[in-house]
Amino acid sequence: MKHEMTNGLSNFADNLQDKIDRLNNPTVMGLDPILDYVPDQLRDYFFEQCEDPAMAAGLSILEFNRRLIDATADIIPAVKPQLAYYEQYGVHGWEALRQTIAYAKSKGMIVIADGKRNDIGSTASAYASAILGDTELRPGSRQEMLGADCITVNAWLGIDGIEPFLKLCRENGKGIFALVRTSNPSAIDIQDLKLEDGRTVYEAMADKVNEWGSDLIGNCGYSSVGAVVGATWPQQAAELRARMPHTMILVPGYGAQGAGAADAVAGFGPDGRGGIVNASRSLMTAWKKHKMDHESFDLACRKEALEMRNNLRRALESRS
Amino acid sequence: MKHEMTNGLSNFADNLQDKIDRLNNPTVMGLDPILDYVPDQLRDYFFEQCEDPAMAAGLSILEFNRRLIDATADIIPAVKPQLAYYEQYGVHGWEALRQTIAYAKSKGMIVIADGKRNDIGSTASAYASAILGDTELRPGSRQEMLGADCITVNAWLGIDGIEPFLKLCRENGKGIFALVRTSNPSAIDIQDLKLEDGRTVYEAMADKVNEWGSDLIGNCGYSSVGAVVGATWPQQAAELRARMPHTMILVPGYGAQGAGAADAVAGFGPDGRGGIVNASRSLMTAWKKHKMDHESFDLACRKEALEMRNNLRRALESRS
Repeated sequence: MKHEMTNGLSNFADNLQDKIDRLNNPTVMGLDPILDYVPDQLRDYFFEQCEDPAMAAGLSILEFNRRLIDATADIIPAVKPQLAYYEQYGVHGWEALRQTIAYAKSKGMIVIADGKRNDIGSTASAYASAILGDTELRPGSRQEMLGADCITVNAWLGIDGIEPFLKLCRENGKGIFALVRTSNPSAIDIQDLKLEDGRTVYEAMADKVNEWGSDLIGNCGYSSVGAVVGATWPQQAAELRARMPHTMILVPGYGAQGAGAADAVAGFGPDGRGGIVNASRSLMTAWKKHKMDHESFDLACRKEALEMRNNLRRALESRS
Repeated sequence: MKHEMTNGLSNFADNLQDKIDRLNNPTVMGLDPILDYVPDQLRDYFFEQCEDPAMAAGLSILEFNRRLIDATADIIPAVKPQLAYYEQYGVHGWEALRQTIAYAKSKGMIVIADGKRNDIGSTASAYASAILGDTELRPGSRQEMLGADCITVNAWLGIDGIEPFLKLCRENGKGIFALVRTSNPSAIDIQDLKLEDGRTVYEAMADKVNEWGSDLIGNCGYSSVGAVVGATWPQQAAELRARMPHTMILVPGYGAQGAGAADAVAGFGPDGRGGIVNASRSLMTAWKKHKMDHESFDLACRKEALEMRNNLRRALESRS
């Protein structure tokens, strides 16, 4: 089941798993910046410098992100900026997103753009260009806009809207995580409905995701077509792992969203790999938990990140 | 079933239906700009002016959109910019989107931002702020970023992720269209699966959308919580209309995507209202069909828009 990329690149799953293995830490840091998370002193600096408060907001969250990245790039393999939090600051938010992605990549981190994009094929192609690929500006001249390594997608429209992303997985070593079972209470509204063949709707989605990723399995044994699987139901996560044996799993919900380390790794493979656990708020606002100064948010984040890493390591060890 | 907004505003569905009624035209013009659609002379102007080709691209599509809006604002009630096509030009694309929305609103058009956004509640709130509402930049100081009237959403995550948008429907007269049954071939992958209770998954989604919109029904008899219903299956559209009697329906797929006028209005209410039909490519590239100069794309768009309007009118008349 090994997959050689035609361009000689290892695939996204290999890149991600390799980075996780080297740091021995299956954590992805969610970068979901809200102005309130930025210490007053830092914010005030930019609001005094800029006439346009939206630009000040954009620069504040960019600097906030940079300091979080600096504090963790040697211990956390990947970041996951959530696009909504940048879009809410308009054009300046989008610029902060672009520079955050570039900065994280320059520090060797893998970037998962959390946009949950979805549309019909031609429009999905535009999203793929915007977030993972590049855009033609003149005949023969293309420019990378965001250059993320991976994107989260919503596959409600089926394979047509996923195929443009798969093309970049095949040709450019990119990755996707498709929503399978989310962790929010109303996931039951649609995802948990029972089909006449006995599966739930989310299990049917899992089967599709498993199928779409079957030709993108890397040397690590996992596919560049991953799945988002909520961690508040560990039994569910284990069942989904069995259903999608080669699917890399992105687990939201560690820390502030409630799940503990044992729950978070419930969907990892029998080899203790093939998964990555997201924490956003618990890392960005760790200064509160550790009773540190708001100004020391980055040091607090590192402290919390090390604690989370150690908890995940212990949870994985006690599984085997 | 009449609904008075607490702030005295009529609701989104009333605003949209009123505009449709006044122009006697249930058309929404999709603004999905691709640089290739822009005539050479117009593009060259901006590429000569700007050192940054991405900025030139953004300005080109903005001017292209403005001319389409100028050519149609007296005959077409609404525009639907598809966010992917702006995101592919990066920050400058996002700025073109912002200015396109502002320009369309200044010409009295209703703006439906086609972003198919979706996430858990807190993140959906950020999307709602970004696209429909406003964002707090300083305590007590909020700024509107895009200010669209309505957004398309994907409700795979259930009500949690929809509620932040509903709040703006209730409090600010905004609207949403939730994906129910899309028109692409692989809509069958998930949407058409059969549930154990006999419904399809998309029918279950329709029932949810119908329920979520029940307290947002305006004087026109339709709700600010609308549904996207693909028009390539007219029988399906009629069945969904019966299932969601008060839901405003957004019909994609007229013109270049294949469906004719009779199919497009199949999901309208028995009163010949409660629906709006999108055309994007067929309007933006009408100069080809009408064998006109590329430079006259706006006049060609108007010609095609009048033809489409007349076809829709005839199709609605022949139904009754």
